[in-house]
Amino acid sequence: MNNLTMSTDLYQINMMYAYYKKGMDRQRTVFDVFFRKAPCGNGYAVFAGLEQVLDYIENIRFTEEDIAYLRSVYPYEEGFLDMLRNFRFTGSISAMKEGTIVFPGEPLIRIEAPVCEAQLIETTMLTIINHQTLIATKAARIVGAAKGDIVLEFGLRRAQGADAGYYGARAAYIGGVHATSNVMAGRDFGIPVRGTHAHSFVQLFEHELDAFTAYSEAFPDETVLLVDTYDTLGVGIPHAIKLGLAMKEKGKKLLGIRLDSGDLAYLSKEARRMLDDAGLEDVAIIASSDLDEHLIQDLKSQEAQITIWGVGTNLITSSDCPALGGVYKLAAVEKDGEWLPRLKISENPTKITNPGYKQVVRFYDLATDRPLADLIALEDEEIPRDKITLFHPLFPHKRKTICNYRIESLLHPMIERGQRCYKTPSLDDIREYSRKDLARFSPEIKRLTNPHEYHVDLSQKLWDLKQRLIHQERE
Amino acid sequence: MNNLTMSTDLYQINMMYAYYKKGMDRQRTVFDVFFRKAPCGNGYAVFAGLEQVLDYIENIRFTEEDIAYLRSVYPYEEGFLDMLRNFRFTGSISAMKEGTIVFPGEPLIRIEAPVCEAQLIETTMLTIINHQTLIATKAARIVGAAKGDIVLEFGLRRAQGADAGYYGARAAYIGGVHATSNVMAGRDFGIPVRGTHAHSFVQLFEHELDAFTAYSEAFPDETVLLVDTYDTLGVGIPHAIKLGLAMKEKGKKLLGIRLDSGDLAYLSKEARRMLDDAGLEDVAIIASSDLDEHLIQDLKSQEAQITIWGVGTNLITSSDCPALGGVYKLAAVEKDGEWLPRLKISENPTKITNPGYKQVVRFYDLATDRPLADLIALEDEEIPRDKITLFHPLFPHKRKTICNYRIESLLHPMIERGQRCYKTPSLDDIREYSRKDLARFSPEIKRLTNPHEYHVDLSQKLWDLKQRLIHQERE
Repeated sequence: MNNLTMSTDLYQINMMYAYYKKGMDRQRTVFDVFFRKAPCGNGYAVFAGLEQVLDYIENIRFTEEDIAYLRSVYPYEEGFLDMLRNFRFTGSISAMKEGTIVFPGEPLIRIEAPVCEAQLIETTMLTIINHQTLIATKAARIVGAAKGDIVLEFGLRRAQGADAGYYGARAAYIGGVHATSNVMAGRDFGIPVRGTHAHSFVQLFEHELDAFTAYSEAFPDETVLLVDTYDTLGVGIPHAIKLGLAMKEKGKKLLGIRLDSGDLAYLSKEARRMLDDAGLEDVAIIASSDLDEHLIQDLKSQEAQITIWGVGTNLITSSDCPALGGVYKLAAVEKDGEWLPRLKISENPTKITNPGYKQVVRFYDLATDRPLADLIALEDEEIPRDKITLFHPLFPHKRKTICNYRIESLLHPMIERGQRCYKTPSLDDIREYSRKDLARFSPEIKRLTNPHEYHVDLSQKLWDLKQRLIHQERE
Repeated sequence: MNNLTMSTDLYQINMMYAYYKKGMDRQRTVFDVFFRKAPCGNGYAVFAGLEQVLDYIENIRFTEEDIAYLRSVYPYEEGFLDMLRNFRFTGSISAMKEGTIVFPGEPLIRIEAPVCEAQLIETTMLTIINHQTLIATKAARIVGAAKGDIVLEFGLRRAQGADAGYYGARAAYIGGVHATSNVMAGRDFGIPVRGTHAHSFVQLFEHELDAFTAYSEAFPDETVLLVDTYDTLGVGIPHAIKLGLAMKEKGKKLLGIRLDSGDLAYLSKEARRMLDDAGLEDVAIIASSDLDEHLIQDLKSQEAQITIWGVGTNLITSSDCPALGGVYKLAAVEKDGEWLPRLKISENPTKITNPGYKQVVRFYDLATDRPLADLIALEDEEIPRDKITLFHPLFPHKRKTICNYRIESLLHPMIERGQRCYKTPSLDDIREYSRKDLARFSPEIKRLTNPHEYHVDLSQKLWDLKQRLIHQERE
């Protein structure tokens, strides 16, 4: 991984300098990372990017080149530049496990650190989490719409740069896709890679069948043919059938054909019929062509005969919602060994932050293992083990009492006083953890449109604290 | 720059292998990069990313780690892996200059190379050009809407990863923004950097005015204050005025205040009035808060008193259109020393490619220097110097005869037989070149909504060739 130390906003450096000048740079603070709205109107998000955040923080180093550059930007005092030269992250970070199903308002990452350290890491932490959580969530939507079919991530050429394709492939895999076309992501993350051929490959041969034959000779056990270069039903599929039958005779098997244009519902049904009539019932039909979760759902409702979906642009950019608005907000400052809660007020009640040093817990129904609600509480609160009344944080008259549950704490220590204390799981383990986590939730929160709102409530103590601080601020 | 050799789709490697197996790997080909629709409904695009493409191609190298990984993906023959091990790009590339104003259908880059080389570079070339051209174009829209005001790129935390922020800042600068918050982009690309402070900075002090004072002490000549932490009109601006007056007495100057929430039209007018009443007429008002070109145009039509615009998410992700659909299509193959044209047909007439080894020229009116039309022609065609009749490639009855023009060739040699033969201009020169290029075009093609369609026509010879090949294919 590159050194991302300088991948930050200048205002972080400037605030650090102003704190340094005031002698406030060691002031301890707590910040929370959270988002206010899941992407694409989804009912949840898939938390992703943590491993890259931890790697980034571990490797923060200002080089002499960086210092020289900063000196050219502003006449910062040399003492401050020395502070940067010796910069190491010494704080503590707790976070959700990667792959966790998360909801608006919940602290995903909690940073406790001297303010200068906490500020420096804000931007890159948000960049990484916003990007990977966005793409993992989009992937989960698409994989959900495909209802058990195979989904391939194909988007590199339309990604917002090579890195967006690379980390996007990682996030999409966490979100449930089965493989990627991205060779570098395969090499570094161990994601299965897939690829066949392009139209240009067919065009380079005199006849389409020659191209198909050449491809099958190079990949006798993995032949998938793109059949829409000239005329899908007229020549493409007949050629694929001819080759498929010849392969069959030799004891080989044509794996699939790929449709990349046209009316995928109609073409896939015709293709299925033609293949079946030829005795090639086990040749799969793969489709690509500007697919997204809505198109896949629609094609499935039309009984399109597609079992493998190649998704490009709309997945790798999350095209209908290309940014997750994760934020980084001050929650507490230390004074005389105590944490003083801080909140940021706003005209918009949903934008008022939750103050204090907080924890997040999830309640699971003991009988069904289904998550009942999440609760944001103060860190030192004891969560009742037998029965609890939850209420909506904006409309407190909406109440619900739950019992017969087990509790899980969602925030786990990742870095303790500058030392990484968490062994990152393998990507396959993250993906599996996420799949199991999502499977526990009710289908209503998982539907694509107008999902049910999952309960994320505040503890009475946190709610009271918040009201008190709002009143104080108003005066 | 990282080694992006493996940042490609597996199907490129697979096609290369199939060509290798057939002994076709040295088959010479010509491919074109072009897009079919400018992003965001814009009337043009700003071509960007070329420098990174050239750097990438120059540095293509498969490492032993890459080879070992590929061996694990598929049992490619060792001879093929040796070919990869020794891979160097030996072809020739012509391209538009970075910053050029470009239009749908025009070859932006023309690649002449053995097919294996041409295929390998397809994906990363598209990734880079699609991303940077997209963001440069979005930036040009936003800068256009700001009508001479300063525009700052602020989007790193919402970018699709750190690299998307980094190269996005570069592209946005080419598109006309004046500065970025991205320190790494400042360091490496020489883009001016800007930054002030966050809400958390204000919250860390007992009183807002203490925070403002601390900031101004650290940056006495560059003080910009964020005034909406508590109550913009009630306390934020009064505190800023108090500090501004105190600075004035000491011979210093408050540079500006920043509004980051609320009704920017109303707040900026009130702020202007309050500042002016206090004798602080020269304090600038900076606005940020989910801005885009439409909001800026709207705020300006309401006479909002804002002269500096900080644009984040909507610029760095091009949020309403987060991908440019640039493609890479086979145009010609060599046979017995001759270039045989190739075209890809489609049910959709606008998707049929232009065949052959092509050039692109632009006609400028001699009197006004305004571009009149672009023409795509075959490379060996002589373009008439005195008078030419142009016609619409889809509706050939739409004709227009022009004269009194000068001609400019838009494709320039960048790499000749594997050797870079073009000295990349500085980023400031690219930005200035782009600004001047855009200034020549009529305002009608530059408006945000329903722009006039600029003429991009085919030469008679190319049009005839295309029709002939379409007929051949249909038979």
